[in-house]
Order: sequence, then structure tokens, then C-alpha cells
Amino acid sequence: MTNAWPDLRGIAYGGDYNPEQWSRETWREDVVLMREAGVNLVSVGIFSWALIETAEGVFDFEWLDELLDLLHENGIRVDLGTPTASPPAWFFAAHPESRVIDREGRVMGFGSRGMVSHSSPAYREAIVRIADALATRYAQHPAVVLWHVHNEYGAPVGEDYSPASVAAFRGWLQKKYATLDALNAAWGTAFWGQHYTAWEHIGAPAISASVVNPAQRLDFARFTDHQLRECFIAERDAIRAHSDKPITTNFMANQTWTCDLWAWGREVDVVSDDHYLWAADEDAHIGLAIAADLSRSVGGGKPWILMEHSTSAVNWQPRNIAKRRGEMKRNSLTHLGRGADGILFFQWRAGRSGAEKFHSAMLPHAGRESRVFREVTELGADLANLAEVQGSTVEAEVAVLWDFESFWAQDLEWRPSEDVSHAAQIRRFYEQLWRDGITCDFALPGHDLSKYKLVVAPAQYLLSQADAANLTAYVENGGTLLVSFFSAIVDENDAVHAGGFVAPLRDALGLTVEEFLPLREGESHRLDWDGEDAVVGDVWQEDIALSGAEVIANFGGGPGEGEPAITRHRHGSGAGWYVGTRLDAAGMKALFREVYADAGLTASALPAGVEIVTRRGGDDAVYRIAVNHTADAAEIPAVGTDLLSGAEAGGTFTIAAGGVAVIRSTD
Amino acid sequence: MTNAWPDLRGIAYGGDYNPEQWSRETWREDVVLMREAGVNLVSVGIFSWALIETAEGVFDFEWLDELLDLLHENGIRVDLGTPTASPPAWFFAAHPESRVIDREGRVMGFGSRGMVSHSSPAYREAIVRIADALATRYAQHPAVVLWHVHNEYGAPVGEDYSPASVAAFRGWLQKKYATLDALNAAWGTAFWGQHYTAWEHIGAPAISASVVNPAQRLDFARFTDHQLRECFIAERDAIRAHSDKPITTNFMANQTWTCDLWAWGREVDVVSDDHYLWAADEDAHIGLAIAADLSRSVGGGKPWILMEHSTSAVNWQPRNIAKRRGEMKRNSLTHLGRGADGILFFQWRAGRSGAEKFHSAMLPHAGRESRVFREVTELGADLANLAEVQGSTVEAEVAVLWDFESFWAQDLEWRPSEDVSHAAQIRRFYEQLWRDGITCDFALPGHDLSKYKLVVAPAQYLLSQADAANLTAYVENGGTLLVSFFSAIVDENDAVHAGGFVAPLRDALGLTVEEFLPLREGESHRLDWDGEDAVVGDVWQEDIALSGAEVIANFGGGPGEGEPAITRHRHGSGAGWYVGTRLDAAGMKALFREVYADAGLTASALPAGVEIVTRRGGDDAVYRIAVNHTADAAEIPAVGTDLLSGAEAGGTFTIAAGGVAVIRSTD
Amino acid sequence: MTNAWPDLRGIAYGGDYNPEQWSRETWREDVVLMREAGVNLVSVGIFSWALIETAEGVFDFEWLDELLDLLHENGIRVDLGTPTASPPAWFFAAHPESRVIDREGRVMGFGSRGMVSHSSPAYREAIVRIADALATRYAQHPAVVLWHVHNEYGAPVGEDYSPASVAAFRGWLQKKYATLDALNAAWGTAFWGQHYTAWEHIGAPAISASVVNPAQRLDFARFTDHQLRECFIAERDAIRAHSDKPITTNFMANQTWTCDLWAWGREVDVVSDDHYLWAADEDAHIGLAIAADLSRSVGGGKPWILMEHSTSAVNWQPRNIAKRRGEMKRNSLTHLGRGADGILFFQWRAGRSGAEKFHSAMLPHAGRESRVFREVTELGADLANLAEVQGSTVEAEVAVLWDFESFWAQDLEWRPSEDVSHAAQIRRFYEQLWRDGITCDFALPGHDLSKYKLVVAPAQYLLSQADAANLTAYVENGGTLLVSFFSAIVDENDAVHAGGFVAPLRDALGLTVEEFLPLREGESHRLDWDGEDAVVGDVWQEDIALSGAEVIANFGGGPGEGEPAITRHRHGSGAGWYVGTRLDAAGMKALFREVYADAGLTASALPAGVEIVTRRGGDDAVYRIAVNHTADAAEIPAVGTDLLSGAEAGGTFTIAAGGVAVIRSTD
Repeated sequence: MTNAWPDLRGIAYGGDYNPEQWSRETWREDVVLMREAGVNLVSVGIFSWALIETAEGVFDFEWLDELLDLLHENGIRVDLGTPTASPPAWFFAAHPESRVIDREGRVMGFGSRGMVSHSSPAYREAIVRIADALATRYAQHPAVVLWHVHNEYGAPVGEDYSPASVAAFRGWLQKKYATLDALNAAWGTAFWGQHYTAWEHIGAPAISASVVNPAQRLDFARFTDHQLRECFIAERDAIRAHSDKPITTNFMANQTWTCDLWAWGREVDVVSDDHYLWAADEDAHIGLAIAADLSRSVGGGKPWILMEHSTSAVNWQPRNIAKRRGEMKRNSLTHLGRGADGILFFQWRAGRSGAEKFHSAMLPHAGRESRVFREVTELGADLANLAEVQGSTVEAEVAVLWDFESFWAQDLEWRPSEDVSHAAQIRRFYEQLWRDGITCDFALPGHDLSKYKLVVAPAQYLLSQADAANLTAYVENGGTLLVSFFSAIVDENDAVHAGGFVAPLRDALGLTVEEFLPLREGESHRLDWDGEDAVVGDVWQEDIALSGAEVIANFGGGPGEGEPAITRHRHGSGAGWYVGTRLDAAGMKALFREVYADAGLTASALPAGVEIVTRRGGDDAVYRIAVNHTADAAEIPAVGTDLLSGAEAGGTFTIAAGGVAVIRSTD
Repeated sequence: MTNAWPDLRGIAYGGDYNPEQWSRETWREDVVLMREAGVNLVSVGIFSWALIETAEGVFDFEWLDELLDLLHENGIRVDLGTPTASPPAWFFAAHPESRVIDREGRVMGFGSRGMVSHSSPAYREAIVRIADALATRYAQHPAVVLWHVHNEYGAPVGEDYSPASVAAFRGWLQKKYATLDALNAAWGTAFWGQHYTAWEHIGAPAISASVVNPAQRLDFARFTDHQLRECFIAERDAIRAHSDKPITTNFMANQTWTCDLWAWGREVDVVSDDHYLWAADEDAHIGLAIAADLSRSVGGGKPWILMEHSTSAVNWQPRNIAKRRGEMKRNSLTHLGRGADGILFFQWRAGRSGAEKFHSAMLPHAGRESRVFREVTELGADLANLAEVQGSTVEAEVAVLWDFESFWAQDLEWRPSEDVSHAAQIRRFYEQLWRDGITCDFALPGHDLSKYKLVVAPAQYLLSQADAANLTAYVENGGTLLVSFFSAIVDENDAVHAGGFVAPLRDALGLTVEEFLPLREGESHRLDWDGEDAVVGDVWQEDIALSGAEVIANFGGGPGEGEPAITRHRHGSGAGWYVGTRLDAAGMKALFREVYADAGLTASALPAGVEIVTRRGGDDAVYRIAVNHTADAAEIPAVGTDLLSGAEAGGTFTIAAGGVAVIRSTD
Repeated sequence: MTNAWPDLRGIAYGGDYNPEQWSRETWREDVVLMREAGVNLVSVGIFSWALIETAEGVFDFEWLDELLDLLHENGIRVDLGTPTASPPAWFFAAHPESRVIDREGRVMGFGSRGMVSHSSPAYREAIVRIADALATRYAQHPAVVLWHVHNEYGAPVGEDYSPASVAAFRGWLQKKYATLDALNAAWGTAFWGQHYTAWEHIGAPAISASVVNPAQRLDFARFTDHQLRECFIAERDAIRAHSDKPITTNFMANQTWTCDLWAWGREVDVVSDDHYLWAADEDAHIGLAIAADLSRSVGGGKPWILMEHSTSAVNWQPRNIAKRRGEMKRNSLTHLGRGADGILFFQWRAGRSGAEKFHSAMLPHAGRESRVFREVTELGADLANLAEVQGSTVEAEVAVLWDFESFWAQDLEWRPSEDVSHAAQIRRFYEQLWRDGITCDFALPGHDLSKYKLVVAPAQYLLSQADAANLTAYVENGGTLLVSFFSAIVDENDAVHAGGFVAPLRDALGLTVEEFLPLREGESHRLDWDGEDAVVGDVWQEDIALSGAEVIANFGGGPGEGEPAITRHRHGSGAGWYVGTRLDAAGMKALFREVYADAGLTASALPAGVEIVTRRGGDDAVYRIAVNHTADAAEIPAVGTDLLSGAEAGGTFTIAAGGVAVIRSTD
């Protein structure tokens, strides 16, 4: 039987450790400083293939033996990586056909990382060989508590157009469709004369003279996800043959969209995730919260590990903004509040060479005497005080739909307006929930949604009939559903649903959409909305054909002038809301206020910029993790003990500017 | 003897029909709705290759037999397409060398359309085989009244850098130049050491380290046009061997510039054209008018067919703006007014799958109960009322020069300023004529221009000595010629004319240009112009060396300050006008006012935004097609009967906001 | 013994001459007009390979014999080019593997110029063959006074990813590193698992899935420079075997950065340089001054030749702005003032064909009767009056560091902020010196700097320990050093220096930098600076850790608020200044004012926009070359004779608006 959580006490704390970049003397300094910082877990070996397997089948474990022993002697546990994200130079020299070819036919050379074909037979063989060798040697090592397969599947590249990938794609299609008739029907090959009469004629959707069949591209995205996952499973199973310790791989939730994390969540023992702030976003902590909630959701609500984030700046953005004093702790506590029981960084010690030498680390180039290391040590001490939080869970009353297939389909070329992006739509709806202090899960439209008071579907472009029926039943049974424009447009083959746009949700929403009316760049129009004078929508309007819904607001101008913009429909014992434009901040606030009323929810009355998430543990323990993102002290209602400061709250509690608190109470 | 117009009564009405995407049951619904909508012509088979020739030389005509019979039974005529724009998957599998290679060496894969090399011997053989097979089978079918070869030659790709294309290019060059000496001279290969000593050393002008020889690129553009036209001719002749019905192929006038439509116009029995509004252009109907006038002009003034336009939005622009109520009719009537005797759409029924599923159709996804289908039906009824207009012709007193060779040469790299584009210059000059209510033809500089009161040359960069002499003779014989800057710069080999810029037109214009003075980005300067206080020019100034011309306006600032900006020259019994900057709207209006005075033309006094074009039929019938592009009713002077409403006009006539009228009178 | 200056009297004057583009009749007209214009030197043969070597090893010198004789008869000397920048078509047909392949794998085709691999064995053989043949034939020709090898090495392409280049790169690396251990250490291959176990596994740093090893890219830049230089040396030595006349190749100082001009300066007998104004830069004459100072500096202060500039517009910029009256002369005199003893143009006669037909020339398309030719003739006369200036030298009291290796390293991907560029930083610091009327040399950080009162290091990102020690010793011995942020970050392998950022200069500057704090796009903050109220910094802030320096100014806002922004440190008998943000113009002015005080320098009191540089000749002759870039006459202090006008200055001298003067005095 497999363990689902590493054998660790309290909150895991540490980071990626790359000892191969350093001398033995530095190793010894490292373990001393790790202990000073409160580190209890490090990820090792992620880029060590060339130093472990020095030629095909020739292994050198000496340095790794020595390192693991050193860490173990110092009480530091190990998350042992398989180095398969970066095969050695000798591998590519022996198997040049294993290199990735991109959509334009360009061969990805050696010298960075992640440049190997997920479908190369030689690669598949090699990853099992090294995973097996590592597991054989270290399964019983007392330091090893977790296995870390590969690194960030799907980044920097997912799709591969090499011959190996094309061949595998054909096999995958044959398995999926069985007959060419089925494939031709699913892909709509009658359009533009793309009918296939032999499996061998099918290729990857590489660049062509014009836009390539979108159903083919959608299947290629599914195939890519599948191939990457097969690689993971092959390694996982090779390890499992030797070890019952938990196995994970680090996701990139809300940062890349190549992997269908719902499917991956089922394959890992414990979810782990990497998250980096997008510096140009002044509210990057909201993107962070999305990533954290998604990580928790794809793991079924169980605790997860923040496998990587940064102590300060990263190095790969146009302008790599350093974190300010306290920001690293706020970020860490937001992750923890949303279910993370491990807070790790890339990386322990800043590397002197290579592409990421300007990436921050727990131990920066400036060394021990630095703001960053002081804050790292402080955070280590704080997390030690939160040991009891480990294992508690987050509860949410709202679900936001997040469907990777809909992402893949929606972001293809030749959609009605390039101003609509799935990710941006999700952020807009999520952001209002965040500002209203309402914690949410993410979910698929086919999930059992009955436990949620409200389900939000922001641009659920691809929606199968079955999933639409599930959403309709949810409303019928009393749920409140809020759907944005450009939802329920196509089926699983990117074919427009019969009956007009939104037809699959006609019963739930009381409408269909006759025609899209995208707006010009920069165009926006006022809404006619009783009691709301200043609400504006941009990007989109549409011709809604009502079939039962009541009109909440009409377009006050533009191509849809006078037509419905926001509607509400009673269906069964629930309600289906629909919004046919992109609302501004005032509009989102007003919309949700009315939707909450239907759903029986209440927006919190917290000061703007203060975030509180609740985790529930055993013995009725309730932990309120509060983060103050503002430059002013904030007063929040609270009763209990702040586990960080030890302060007692008897009704209200003051969080310092930029500060955090974890208030334990018993509900 | 070949017919030049399909055997149809009245105005043709219909669209592309893709029955291969639909069930037999839907076919039967389609013909009922077509009849309801007034459809009398549909284009069939354009993307059906894979379903007709299911393997090399194996044909399946059953479904097409059934379809054509069904259409015939319902009185709907057929424009039968050859499907050669989209060869089947089996063709590319058997002939991978037939794929297009782009300038950067990238191979264009299967999965979209138009991705085949115009010079592939296998392709050339295949298109004749299928054209022959279709013509053999359907030449006598009573439904077939028109042949539609291929689809939009030159789009999405024209140029091909594959080995087959390179080999054909060498052959084309040998035929054109006979000797390498002639080629070296024409291409100016002494520059940058490009002298050729063997035909086999010559390649296509693929990417190089720096800018490639412009004369070579110009010849490659000519070659590309030639190869595409050879493909057309091969299919046309294969059909002609069996059928005397008219043969066409759909142009893309004013949308792509790969084909020299003057040459193509000579090869087709009837001109047909596809036109789509460019949504970001608030005055997209002016671009439409250009396309319509160009279609008529390349066909020598004969009636032509609007083969495709859209009922509402397209799907391939950044933001696909839906047409508003009445806009489709206005567009259709503008085409008709400018000589179209057929109004067809892409497409009859919106396709559920593929890259263009969001393209509008006569029968939209929303089905019969929709604004679009109601307007389609209304338009069908309107066109039925205009049957008598068929065959009437448009008269124009002004010609605007439109020379594809000059386009090709002018838009190459390393010109004096990237702010000058041939297409934009044509639009600026045409637009003023449009606003002044003056209908114009397009013409080549070598055409007989004697019938025009005014000839306008907007940036005729490439102008041969012979063509310059033709223009000069035109002025000498009393014509008025208006020439913009960057005209008469190079000869047919993109070599600068001896004698300084504009030298070939020195007699006609009374000047040469000593030096170009392009302006910086955003820079503009006032003109010193008697009676015009507020005229501004941007983009360009120049040092004009007068040799007889009188100065109308000088530059009021900038590098050419105090020097001539606009001139007028009496030559023979005509006048040559020249403008050396890019004028703003006020400047264009003032300029044309003075030019009209010389030419004996008068700007109309119509309300702004109202367009009237006149067609003349037999028996002195005159049809004034009026389109009101504004949001207000407009009063126009008119005597006669509105064929659409039946209303009588006794001096003035009121067109509703956004409305149209076709007023018949007898002059 | 080799001559270092061509056998010419006075200032060289002329341009590139491409007689292969013209008839014999035009040649005869050319020499007449050259004499009229005062031309005494033309560059010939630069693109004539195909016409000289008409097939491999087959030479035709007839036309060139005739031309050189004609020039000689007319007293015009020849700078004879080797045509190796543009191999003939037959060469590429025979050696297709000699074509350049770019980083993305695209093959650079024939048809432009500069598209040959520097590492192709066939090319290496061919260039020696033609250089030898030319030298054999013309070493004794009386017209030839200078050899011009190749053209603009490194432009349009430097880097080559072809197999020949990869093979050569491996050889170069083996020679540099001897062992793979040394290479692995230098490149930091432990990062991202890039450890090499065989030389054959190493490739060029072509595109990969993510960012490629920066140390590998830096070495590839060094290798590229080395290979190009090897090509030059091979040709130079082939010529030297026959001729003792000076040999040069035309650099592109401050326009491209592929060649390490310090190394090249050691290989040429005389430095020559091409310079073109960047039209979008309103102060393009400052960029020109940089290029001129750099040309002089890499030649060790000796007179150099301006091999190419333009009489008016170029043809390859987005908008090719023509020079205005007098601008060509101002440009020429600035070059001359900064040490150029030859003023040449591309090109003598404007070419009718090819990619550069819109490039200006001494004899424009408009011909002899043109503003440009009149100014060319006037300049020829002026230069004749300056014969005595030839051989005099420029003295500078300030050095600005300019290190090509630091350029290469700094402009790689994934730096802290894309808003920092080495070139732009140099321009900012240089520009203040220019505005203050202070002439400077450029220097490497390892040079003997003791003769300079001030050394400026604008973003010297790569700085070896040895070079840092040299700078520190300079300060210790009384020098003043001014260093900007992002200096002394990495060593020669692009590895971050141990001890924190700027650590190698800690003694000289009295500080290190703990963390970079790049600012957001458009963000800027005031400085707290006694006596300076309005100074603002943008782009960058940082956490400076003082170790002895005094604080001159603090950040008044932003992430570094309250921390040091500008510091000064006494070290030995000198001073080390440091500035940790990008200062605005007011800030630069104030900073330099204080730095000058330390250095014992004084800003000139000249009118803004007036430039004066001093050259010193024999017999205590002093030449003050004054250029007035403004639209107003300017009064300058001067005593002596203006060699151009003959006017005497007895204390002050008035230069006309846009005018120039060369005032001789005896100090």
C-alpha cells in the first residue's frame, strides 16, 4: 500500500538543491545553513542525469550516496528526483531522432532543458532505466521520503512534431476512433476536403498554408497530454516496483495549460505544484490564489505541496521584480491557507552559472548576511509553529469550472474575437469572488456539483451534451449557475452544437444565442440596468433569444442595443444566470451581489486587500489564515490564538501592514 | 462558341453549397429553404476532391449525381466547382514533393487548404484528370450552367520555393530572357556580385543574409502569377473540351495581390470575385466599392458575378464584426450597382466543424428563425425585382491606375519610407472620388485612356517608358492626369529611370524630382496654398525640380520648406497635376476640386455617405442604384420608379436610413 | 616593412566605386566628375568576384586593368578591394555546404550578400586564391595605395550554425579548454544537466526548447569573432606576400558588435570604419562621435579612414531621412576632428539596380546638377584646404570602457531587466561628456588607464578579477572611476562573482550590491540628493551594502526607498563613484559635475549643440575642429585662422548656423 504523504512532521520546508554545482566544502556549509533556516526537505537530483548515468547503462552513485548520507545525518529529508527532464548530451548524440521538432519544423537543439520527444522509443526506454536504477539504490535510504518524477511536464515544450510523435499520434487515433469513418466524422473532414482514406495519411497538425483543422489540433493537444502522462506513469511504475513512498511530479497550475491536471491528479500520490508570480500583474497574488485552489482541487481537496516558488525575483520575465519585505511570507501563507502543507523554493542556493543565475534562492548570491536569508529563516520558524495545521482541509461553497479541453479548443485560431481568452475570463470571475472573500474550488462540468451553492462557468466554450445535462440537473436540484458568454458553443469535437449557440444549456438558462456581436477594439457600452447607473461592458455583445429567462439588464448601446445583456432563469428549484458581455469591475460586483442572493452566499466585509481562508482540522480546530496585502494595518473579526505571534484575539485582531496571521479557534 | 454568361434569368442569387458536410435529410431541407430564399444558383464541389476521386483515378460520382438531380428538380442551377484548391490526403501521401515550401524553407503540411505547389508535375497531371472527369460526366447535366475552376488562386499562398517551383522558374526565365547576358542586365547582377554564368545556378529568391535582388523578386512574383494562371488554363481547357458553358474562377480583387487580374480577366469567360469587409475599417464599404470597380474593369466592363461575400461576420479577422440590419443588402446593392449581375455568398448553410464554423452563412447556426435568414429571403425577393437590370453596364469618366506589377515592386523591402504603400495610396485617391460621387474604372497605364476625362496615378512606382509615353500622349491630347509622389521611379526591371526620378513623365508634368525627403514617424507640415489655410501633408516631401510646371502649393515647413508641393503643368491640350506629399482629407478635397475644373468634372452634391452609381441598359433605360450608408434618411434628386419599393420619384426621393433604392428612368 | 598609411597627400577623399555597373562611356564621365569633386581615392572591386574569377580558378582581369589605368591617368588613387564578402553563384553551386545556417536552422540562400560560412574549407581556400591573384597582378600597379579586404565583417551575418561551423567550434573549444573538465567547469554544465563526456557531443548554441547555456553562447560569440578574423588574416597574409602597401578592412564601429575591434585593430595596418546615421535619432551626430572615437581608440590613437558614410539618405531604415544642407559636411568634419584623415562615401555614383538603389551617392540619380553633387564638390575643396591636418592626433583625458565581451554577455536572454542595454548605457554616459565638451577615448578595463583623469564604466557587466584589480589600482593611484549599476557581475565565463554583486570592485567603490530591484515598465522615482531637487531615476534600483562609501544620494521612493542610490568612495589617492539607477538628464549633469571636481576636469562653456575637438600636429600646431549642430550662429572662444574660410579669430569666432570651422593656432 502506497503512502500519500511523505514521512515528515509538520509543514515541509525547503527547496530544490543542486549539490552537483558545488564543492564538498560548500555541501557542509549548506547543511549547517539549512538547519539554521529550518529546512526539513530538499529536492535532489532533478538535473543530475549526466552525472549519475555517465554513459548508457553506466551508473555513478557515489556522490549521491555521500550527499544523501550527509543530509540524513543532519535530519534533512529528501525528495528524490528522476532527472528525465534533461537527458545527457550522450543521449542526444546516440539518439538524435529523439529531439523535439516544433510546429514550424525546427529541431530543438541541446543546451537548455526539456528538449526531448515524449514519444521517442529510446527516451521511453532510458527513463525507465534510470528511474529503476535510482529506485533500486535508494528505495530503502532513510533520508528519502518522497519521489519527484521529472520536472514540470509540458514546459518549456509540450507538443512535438517529430516522426516518432507523428507515428504515436496515429496509434493514439486508431485506438480512440477505431475506424476512419469515426475519425472523419469527428474531425469534420468534409470541410476543406480533408477526408482520410488511410491511417498512414494522417499527420500532426504542423504549419500549413492556412489554419489547420481545429478538431485535429484539439486531439493533438489531448494526445500530447496523454504521451506526457504515459512517460510519468512509466517512471512512476518503475519506482513503485521498489518503493512504497509517495510519488509526485511538480505541476504548473495556472502557468501552463499543456497537462490536463484533473487526469494527472489521479496518477500522483500527492499533488505538488510550482508557482511564480507574474511581475507585471500588480495583483499577482490573485493569480497565485487561483493556482493554489486549482492544485488543491485536482488533488481532490487533499493537502498538497508547493514544490517551487521564489524567495524574491525570478529571471525569465521582461523585468524581474524582487519581492519586497514580507511578500515571500504572504505568498507562502496564501498557499498554506489554500491547502499547501509544504512550502518549498526553487532553489536552496543561487547558482553561479547558467540560464538562471539571476533567479533568487533561499541563500542568495549575497550569502547569509542578507535580507532574503533572514526572511527565509524567519519563515522556517513560523512554519514550525504551524505544525498542527498539517492535514487540515479547506472548505468551499462555490465551484468555478476549469476544463483543460475547453482551454485547448478555445484558444485555437479563428475565433469570433481575439479579445476573449479562457484564462482571462476565469481570472475575472475568480477575482470578484476573491474580493468578496469567498473561497472556491475548481471543478469540471461533469463533476458532482451538488455540494456547491454556486457554480460559475466563465467561457466554458467546449461543453459536451452530457456535461450540459449535469449542469442543468444541478440547477434543477436547487443550484445557482452563473454562465458567461461564449459557453456551450461546441461539443467535444469542436463542432458547433445543433440548435444554435448555448443550446445545450437552454433549459438551465432559458435562452439561446442567435448571433455573436463582438465589439471593436476599445469599444464599450453602458448597460441599462435598474439601480446600476455606471456599469459598462466591452469586448462582446450578442443577440440573445430568450426562451423563458427574465432580463436583468439590457445593452444600452452598440450592435445589441436594447437587447438582453444579463438574464436570470428559474429552472427547477435553482437559477441559471447568464451574462452576454464582458463586465467592468462595477458590473461584476453588482452581478455577483445578485447572484449571491440566489445562492444564499454573503460577501465578506473585510477590508479591501485582506485575504482570509479557513482550514478545518481534527478536534473541531479551525485555522483562519489571514494575509494583509495592503500597506496599512487591518482589523479583522477574530476570536482565538495567532499561532505565529502567540497573540490572543477576543473579537477583533489587527494584522500589521503586509502582515499575516494564523488564528486558531474551535468552532 | 463559348457562352459568356450562365444560362440564368435575372440576377443570380445563392452561395457556396457544401452538401458533403450534411445528411440526405438535410439536403432535402436545404432545397426547400433555398426556394424560400429565392436562390437560383449554388456553387458545388469546391472542396470535394477526396469524396469524388477516392483514390488516384478512382471516381465516385454517385452522391454528386444525386445532388445535382435534386437541385435540378427544384429549379436551382449549379455552378460546378473543380476541387483543385484542396487535393486529398492520398495525393500528398503519394506526392510529398508537391507540398509548398515557403521563403524560409518551411514545408506547408496537410490539414488546411491551398497547400500545393503550382509547379508540381504530379499536381498538374491530377488537376487535368479530375477536371476532365467532372466535365465528361456533367457537361450535359441540365443543372450545370457555369464552371467554377479552383478557388481563390493565390490565397492562402502564392509563392512556392519547392524544388519543382525553382526548376520551373529557371525554365520561365530562360524563355523570358533567352540569354544569361539579358538576365544579368535586367537583374542588375553587377550589384553585390550576383552575376550568373549558368542557368542552373539561379534559384528562387528565398531568405538570404540580407535583402535579395529586387528584380529577381519581381520576376518571381510574375512567375508565380504565371504558374497559377497556367494551372487555371489547364483545367479550363480540359473542361472546354467537353462543354461550351462559361468558365470562371473566383478572384479576390483588392484583397490579395498575387494574381495580375488584368491577365486573368482575359482567360475567364466571366469574371467572378470574392469580397469580404475588413471589419476594422469603419468605411469598409469604400474598400468594397474598389473591389467591385476593379472586378468590372478587369472584365472589360462586362457584368460580373459576386461569387462570395458574407451575410454577416467572417471568422478570420481579429474581431469578426457582425453585419447590422440592412448592411448585407447595402453591400449587395453596391456590388450590383458597380456591375455585378450575381450576388452569391459563402455559404448557404453554416458548417458545424472546421476552421470556418464561425463564418456566417445564408442559413446560420440559429437556423431559419433568425435575423440573417429573414434578410436573406428579403434580399432574394428584392433581386427578383431587379431582373431587368441584368446586362446593363456602368459608365465611368475617370480612370484610376491599378498595376499589379507596380504593387509587387513597390512593396519590396528597402524603399525610402515604410509609410508609403501602394494599396493605401490608391485608397486615398479613390476615396476622394467616392466622396465626390464620381464613378471610376481602374486601368493600366498602357491602356487606351482617351475616353476618360481624368486619369489618376496614385504612386505608380513602376512605369515603363512606353507606358509613360502613353500617359504623356493622353495629356497632350487633352486629358487631365493627376500623379502622386513615388511614381515613375523605376522601369520594368525595378531599375531607376535614367534622368532622375519621374523623368519619364517630365513632359507631362513639367518637373523631375531631385531627392526624396521622407518625413519622420508622425511628422506633418502645413502647406502654403492660396485659399487653403489648413491643409497638412505627412509621410513624404521631396525636392521637385521644375521644368515648366506652375506651383499650386509649397511646403510650409519640414525639409522641403518653401519648395513646391503641388504643381500643375499645361502640356498639349491637357494638364498634368503632381502632388509631392501625402495630403490630409482637406487637402485631397481641395486638390480634386481644382483638378475637376481642368477635367470638366463636377463633384455630386449628394449627402455625405450616400452612394449612387448608374447603370445603363437597353432601350435607354437608366438605373440609379442608391445606397444610404448613414443612420439618417437622405433625400436625393431622382425621377423614375424605385424597382424595389415600387415608389415613384418625381424630382426627389427619400432613402431610409441605411436603405437602398434602384430608380429606373429613361434618359 | 609595411606602410601604415596610404601614399596620399593630404586628406583622402572619395568613395566606393562600382564600375562593373556602368559602361566604358560612363567611366570616362566618372573620372572627369571625380576630378571636379576633388576625389583622390576610390575603393574598387568590393563586389566584383564573379566578374574577376569567372569560374573556379579562371580569371579575367582585363576590365580591371583598364579601369585602374584610367584612374591612374587621372591621378585618382585606388583602394583595391578583395571581393570575398560576396562569392559568386558558381561558388555556391559547387559548394552548397558553404551557405550560412542561422540559429533556427534556416539556410541562407544566394541573392543578397554576406551569406557564406566563415568556417567553410572551400571558402577559406577560395578567398586565399582570389586575394593572391589580385595581389599578384596589382601589387606594383602605381594606382593602388591601399588594400581593402572583404567588406564589413560580421554584417549582415556573423554567427553560423552550419556543420562546418560546428566542427570548427569544437576545434576552437578543444584548443581553448584542452580538457572537457575545464569546459564543463567554465560553462557550468552541472546546471540543467548539460555535462559533456565527449567533444563530439558539443554543438553550436542553436535554438532549443528553452534558453541555451549563456557561457556556451558567449564562447560562440568569441569563436565567431575569431573565425571572421582568421578569414581576414588569411587574405591579408596572401596580399602581404606580394605587397608592402597598407591593408585594411572596414569596421562598423558602434553599428554592429560581432567583431572585437580591439583584437582587429591589432591586425590591420590602418583602421577604417563605416558609419551611417540612425535617422530616428534626433541626435544621431552623437552616435557618430562615439563611432569615430571608437575607431580612433581601437587603432591606438593613430589617424584612421572613414571608409563609408552617406552623402544623404540611406535605404535600409524604416524611414530614410535625407541629410539637410550642410549636414554631410558637419558629419565629415566631426569624423575628421576625431581623427579621421580620410573621408569616403558609399558610393561614388548611385546604382540604378539592386537592393540599394535608393542609397544616396556622391553623384546622385539626379546627376551633376544637384544639391548633393554641389556639396560634394564643396567638401572636396574644403578638405584640400585641410591637408596639413593629416597626421595630427587627438588627445583625451577621459576613458569610457567599451568591452565587446561584456556586450556579448550582457545582451543574452534572461537578464534582470530588458530595459538595460550595454549600448544604451554607454550612449547615456558618453552623451553627458559630449554635452560637457569633453573628448574621450574608449578603453578596455585591462588597459593602462593611468593617463586618464577619469574612467567611466557604464554597465561593465562582465569584468574579470584581473581587470577589476586593474581598475582598483587605477583608483588607488589617484584616478577617478565612475561605475554604473550592473557592472562587475560576472566573470569571463558569465558566472556570478563570488562574494555578491560588484564584489570585485568592493575596494574601489566601498560597496557591494545585495539584490537588484528592477523597476516596472515606465516606473521612475525621485532621488533624495542635497542641492538637487528634481533628479529622477528609472529602470533600476538596488540594495547597496556599503562598506566604506559615502552616500551622495538616496532613493526617494520605490523598492529601494531610503537606500543609497549614488555613492563616492575614497580609495588610495583616488575616488570610486557608483550610481545604482538610470539617471535622467538632470541627474547625469549633476553627477558628472561632482565627478569632474574629483577628477580635475572642467566642462566647457560652449553653446549647447556646438562640438569642438582638438587635434595636435607637428610644430605645436593645434587644430580646433568646431561643428555647429544648431540652427543659430554660435560664438566660440578662439584665436587663430579658420583653414576653411581663411578668416582670422582674435578671441572669439562666430560659426554660422549649421556651419563648421577648423581653427589653427599654436599653443
